[in-house]
Amino acid sequence: MRSDHLGIAVARLDDALKRWEALLGEPAHPPELVESQKVRVAFLDAGGMHLELLEPTSPESPVARFIDKRGEGLHHLAFHVPDVKKELDRLVARGDRVIDTVPRPGARGRRVGFAHPSAFGGVLVEFVEGP
Amino acid sequence: MRSDHLGIAVARLDDALKRWEALLGEPAHPPELVESQKVRVAFLDAGGMHLELLEPTSPESPVARFIDKRGEGLHHLAFHVPDVKKELDRLVARGDRVIDTVPRPGARGRRVGFAHPSAFGGVLVEFVEGP
Repeated sequence: MRSDHLGIAVARLDDALKRWEALLGEPAHPPELVESQKVRVAFLDAGGMHLELLEPTSPESPVARFIDKRGEGLHHLAFHVPDVKKELDRLVARGDRVIDTVPRPGARGRRVGFAHPSAFGGVLVEFVEGP
Repeated sequence: MRSDHLGIAVARLDDALKRWEALLGEPAHPPELVESQKVRVAFLDAGGMHLELLEPTSPESPVARFIDKRGEGLHHLAFHVPDVKKELDRLVARGDRVIDTVPRPGARGRRVGFAHPSAFGGVLVEFVEGP
């Protein structure tokens, strides 16, 4: 299975973009809103994978709650899969918890679904559908 | 700059290996001890990058303290660089904090160095020297 991106929770996207663009040496892709998670996100290329900076747009965003509780930092790890529903079903079938039982719309027009962190030892895993 | 691996703090490496090998669909590389951090680690291929599972071998390990404080989960993000010392010096020169001022021996026989999480908005960044 191939990693797609690493999500990083940030309080202010513009500040974070400066820092990561300086490190990676190239500009981020243009930011977009992801309504289903109440976040504004921007992707950066980091060699074999992408970084996704996530800024909450509402105090009810899961990312806002994450920052309130744990501070800014590494948030989730996403993998490419051909079929998100199948991955979620597989976890449920073996007794693991999931956040999404059906795929929802994510960034970049992709269908996505999240496992529960308890399924992967505290790591929030996202599945991203696509080629 | 190219990502090298994503470090994941785990309480029990053998349990974590089963979980991640099942997800990724292939076996991990053989575990090794990294004395400089008091951890036993195993790398898994995840497409364009690697996952590094880190199990503390002592309560004084930085990874043991991380798990005590925050629980298991995403721990650090590592990038390939040609010269670790140069990256650390660059951060210090612009006023950022670093954990290592000089490179130290890391996993897989590489020289590594860590920035302080405050330098990258709460993300612990490691530089790994090599081709």
